[in-house]
Amino acid sequence: MAEEAFSQRTITCGGLTKADAGKKVVLNGWVHRDRNHGALHFINLRDRYGITQVVVDDDASKELQETAAKLRMEFCIAVVGVVRLRPDSMVNPDMATGEVEVKADSIEILSKCLPLPFMIDGEAEPNEDLRLKYRFLDLRTEGMQKRMKLRHEFVKAIRQYFYKTDFYEIETPTLIKSTPEGARDFLVPSRFYPGKFFALPQSPQLYKQILMVSGMDKYFQIARCYRDEDARGDRQLEFTQLDMEMSFVTRDDILAIMEEMFNEVFIKVMDTKLPEQFRRITYHDSMNTYGNDKPDLRFNIEIHDLNKLAVESTFALFNTTVANGGFVKGLCAPNTEGVSFSRKYIDALQDAAKIYGAQGLAWIKVGANNTLSGGVSKFFVGKEELIINEFNAKDGDLILMVAHENWKKCCTSMGAVRTKLGKELDLIKKGFEFCWIIDFPLFEFNEDENHWEAAHHMFSMPQSQYLDTLESDPGAVKGDLYDLVLNGYEVASGSIRIHDVELQKKIFRICNIDDATAQEKFGFLLDAFKFGPPPHGGIAPGIDRMVMIMAEETSIKEVIAFPKNTAACSPMDDSPSFVDSIQLEELHLKAIFPEKKKD
Amino acid sequence: MAEEAFSQRTITCGGLTKADAGKKVVLNGWVHRDRNHGALHFINLRDRYGITQVVVDDDASKELQETAAKLRMEFCIAVVGVVRLRPDSMVNPDMATGEVEVKADSIEILSKCLPLPFMIDGEAEPNEDLRLKYRFLDLRTEGMQKRMKLRHEFVKAIRQYFYKTDFYEIETPTLIKSTPEGARDFLVPSRFYPGKFFALPQSPQLYKQILMVSGMDKYFQIARCYRDEDARGDRQLEFTQLDMEMSFVTRDDILAIMEEMFNEVFIKVMDTKLPEQFRRITYHDSMNTYGNDKPDLRFNIEIHDLNKLAVESTFALFNTTVANGGFVKGLCAPNTEGVSFSRKYIDALQDAAKIYGAQGLAWIKVGANNTLSGGVSKFFVGKEELIINEFNAKDGDLILMVAHENWKKCCTSMGAVRTKLGKELDLIKKGFEFCWIIDFPLFEFNEDENHWEAAHHMFSMPQSQYLDTLESDPGAVKGDLYDLVLNGYEVASGSIRIHDVELQKKIFRICNIDDATAQEKFGFLLDAFKFGPPPHGGIAPGIDRMVMIMAEETSIKEVIAFPKNTAACSPMDDSPSFVDSIQLEELHLKAIFPEKKKD
Repeated sequence: MAEEAFSQRTITCGGLTKADAGKKVVLNGWVHRDRNHGALHFINLRDRYGITQVVVDDDASKELQETAAKLRMEFCIAVVGVVRLRPDSMVNPDMATGEVEVKADSIEILSKCLPLPFMIDGEAEPNEDLRLKYRFLDLRTEGMQKRMKLRHEFVKAIRQYFYKTDFYEIETPTLIKSTPEGARDFLVPSRFYPGKFFALPQSPQLYKQILMVSGMDKYFQIARCYRDEDARGDRQLEFTQLDMEMSFVTRDDILAIMEEMFNEVFIKVMDTKLPEQFRRITYHDSMNTYGNDKPDLRFNIEIHDLNKLAVESTFALFNTTVANGGFVKGLCAPNTEGVSFSRKYIDALQDAAKIYGAQGLAWIKVGANNTLSGGVSKFFVGKEELIINEFNAKDGDLILMVAHENWKKCCTSMGAVRTKLGKELDLIKKGFEFCWIIDFPLFEFNEDENHWEAAHHMFSMPQSQYLDTLESDPGAVKGDLYDLVLNGYEVASGSIRIHDVELQKKIFRICNIDDATAQEKFGFLLDAFKFGPPPHGGIAPGIDRMVMIMAEETSIKEVIAFPKNTAACSPMDDSPSFVDSIQLEELHLKAIFPEKKKD
Repeated sequence: MAEEAFSQRTITCGGLTKADAGKKVVLNGWVHRDRNHGALHFINLRDRYGITQVVVDDDASKELQETAAKLRMEFCIAVVGVVRLRPDSMVNPDMATGEVEVKADSIEILSKCLPLPFMIDGEAEPNEDLRLKYRFLDLRTEGMQKRMKLRHEFVKAIRQYFYKTDFYEIETPTLIKSTPEGARDFLVPSRFYPGKFFALPQSPQLYKQILMVSGMDKYFQIARCYRDEDARGDRQLEFTQLDMEMSFVTRDDILAIMEEMFNEVFIKVMDTKLPEQFRRITYHDSMNTYGNDKPDLRFNIEIHDLNKLAVESTFALFNTTVANGGFVKGLCAPNTEGVSFSRKYIDALQDAAKIYGAQGLAWIKVGANNTLSGGVSKFFVGKEELIINEFNAKDGDLILMVAHENWKKCCTSMGAVRTKLGKELDLIKKGFEFCWIIDFPLFEFNEDENHWEAAHHMFSMPQSQYLDTLESDPGAVKGDLYDLVLNGYEVASGSIRIHDVELQKKIFRICNIDDATAQEKFGFLLDAFKFGPPPHGGIAPGIDRMVMIMAEETSIKEVIAFPKNTAACSPMDDSPSFVDSIQLEELHLKAIFPEKKKD
């Protein structure tokens, strides 16, 4: 050995207990806190495993006292010393090692630390870019340490499930062909082939289907995926999904595997028992009852269909909407302690509804003894009981209603109101509410481009009863699609896949992709389907989002070690960055800079 | 459920035994073989788990007989039938299910298969591009199925070891900053920032070091890495490594972890007990004894230092080489049954030596009764015993020697001869011979660019005894570097890292990277080292190469599901490919095609 020598730890900073009293130990770690009480010097020494109190006693050597005096926050040090029990009055029950301390015999400074840009032992620094620039410090915080551990444990438990159930983990390529869905593909220029590019995968979709054609039967992969999306919301250029696919299965097989997996994983990682089966809600019912296709079931406000009730009222808008084939829907916001349904608050709810197309939000306040007041209550005179019974409404509740000719807009407007109320009325119970959304439409109409497109992706199987009317009535076709929803987030999306060349081509054509383009872009999948493909299907839960929800965070950046910021840059390594022009030349590329505007 | 219905398997094609006789079962799989014996029709049905013989008896319904007649190789089918014992004379002991067969009641064709471009049940198709174009069929072969399983089991066993030993698996980013080593970086153009690029990582090196600064303590990752290398030899644009790093460790800690891990993994996956510790050979000794730094220890030819012996001879070349401070080295090729050391064969050995700089290869044949003949034997008259004793040579052996003024060229020339003999004399024993190569030089001189550069990478720690002479004598500096070698392949490379800003900058400067460039390119690592970095080190075994060796293959393409071909293309998906000009415009790029040469 010819390295720089240092005193190597004999135990971690989380490992000492009463039983170790009297032992000589070496600890390595960081100065978490550092207090001087006259001649006594207390150092809280931290590593990944915990914190141990180190004491430099007043009888310490001059050398040791001088070294201790040099210590600053986050210095990395080695401590040689003896474990001793703390005096009873000094025992810290909040600390795993709180019954003991280490009396230092010597301290080595392994490396120094500049003054910190933010504190590591307190609340998270609010400035995101500062956190990301100094991510190496941010990752030392208790929160980030816990979340990195949680992510590790989560993925570990997932893998252990798939190991046990005989899935193969198979790596699919990440330098692949760009596809027509490729508008959001990252491209990678080829040095050997001027003008040609690889693409980074948005998912391993085609390759996992190819693996099924290859007879791999049960496949999974924790796969890095890429999407060059506009930098808005909580998105990352790269993200991670659990990708899985099985042969010779139907929808219920996939759902059962996922239920079993998440049950096992949540027991292991969260110590939480999930229902053995998750609720299954059709897309149509979810829209009707929750106003979206990713319902948050942690609170039980439900949207009611009020068409029957609406015609009992004298409200012309309601009457004509129903008469014209439209929809009236409503919900009852419960009277919660401390919330007043002020005019201002109702206006804010209305604004939320309007984003989804509502022209307005009708409201009625419920009073004592089955009375109604305010808003559109005047149109319900004599019908108070009808409306109160509909919602089983109580004194102080608020009825909110939308009328719209368009079913989807009526649903989603009410959904926005429901979601806002759930958060703001503090109705959301702790816990994990999974559900399946099934029976999705296979196609949706792209108004901008004036053609049908796949609601999920083009490889999903239409339900068999629609096979004859695919082309004549695409809008009515339901697919063998399923989303897994958790606490109001879509956390996985999957389907039974097409495995028939002609059906696949038909779907491409409906999505405005002619046979020649399909062959050029997806030829290898279509070719594979000519050689005995098995029936197959799969699903792909998003790892980042799942861990975010489990960690009770609201941004996936909190569960990614080195995320990009909201401007899609990395403040730490300053990427993306300019490169040498010689590198571009080697790639047969020239950068074209947008012309600067004249003053 | 509203999918296309099919008869779903109740058991796999590998699962039936005698005990199942009489049971009604459903099998799903592929027609592996298909034989007609008059009215009897035998189908070998295959899935990932095995093969089961299905019989269509002569009493089968007309419908079933008609379906059976339509079957062709690799059709995907569902069989409903009853398990029965085979007659004693028909039992196939080579088949796991060889005691039973399934009498078909009905057969559904799930999908058809075109005539195959190559056979799936025989030897591997020799045409590589054809295999890769139809990889979905190639992956159905027994060999590829076994190797995908082996790879899965290998990576699984690795993960289980790291799970158990408290490492965190942490994902590092793959859209990162391009570094000065970046000549072989793949670049990814940014859509948001004209002229700026991300790079794909050649390894997670900097990020795993940052994770150590973050206090993550023990990290691992099965990481995809990228290198835009020239398409020669057995290389892939993307490859996978087990990346690991630990804090507060010395070299021996890393070596011990790897030894423990590979011991556990090889027991699980290969049923092979490895030595608890692997041999450790210094770089200098490995070069001297095996002629390279990745010795194949499965055969025991050793290179001898012959300087003393050379001066006893009357061979002027040997005498002057030694007198001028040069080197004479030699080995003894054993007389192996069936190999004749013809002049032509010796010429071929000489050609191998010349590639590494030898001017010639001196040889002597050993005869009966301590006699020498041929080649340079005339210069050793009267010294026969000396040379015979040196090598403990036997009748029929061949002594081969190189004289060179340059130690390294003398070693590697002899190394090339050694390697060739090992393969061609069939000396290589079965099994797995691991060893560590340690004490590597830290720098090597780049003659083309006329400066020193890092022999491995710039982040490795010099051994402490050289800290004062780094700049004055870079060539003499040994680093805390270690390679793991298996059966003549380098399978892992690692080091204790630098964690001191000033030392790191000094290394950069020796490698011709000035402080400004270092700050621009590696600023985030240098910054991190200012905030209490721990001593740390790690290693990164290559997964593809390890599995290749374990599978006794000679190309990593055999253990990758979807590799690129030797021209760095994918014949299956035809990537890389041209993209729409509008996509390039969005990326602010223009393709520059090399001018065509005039006729």
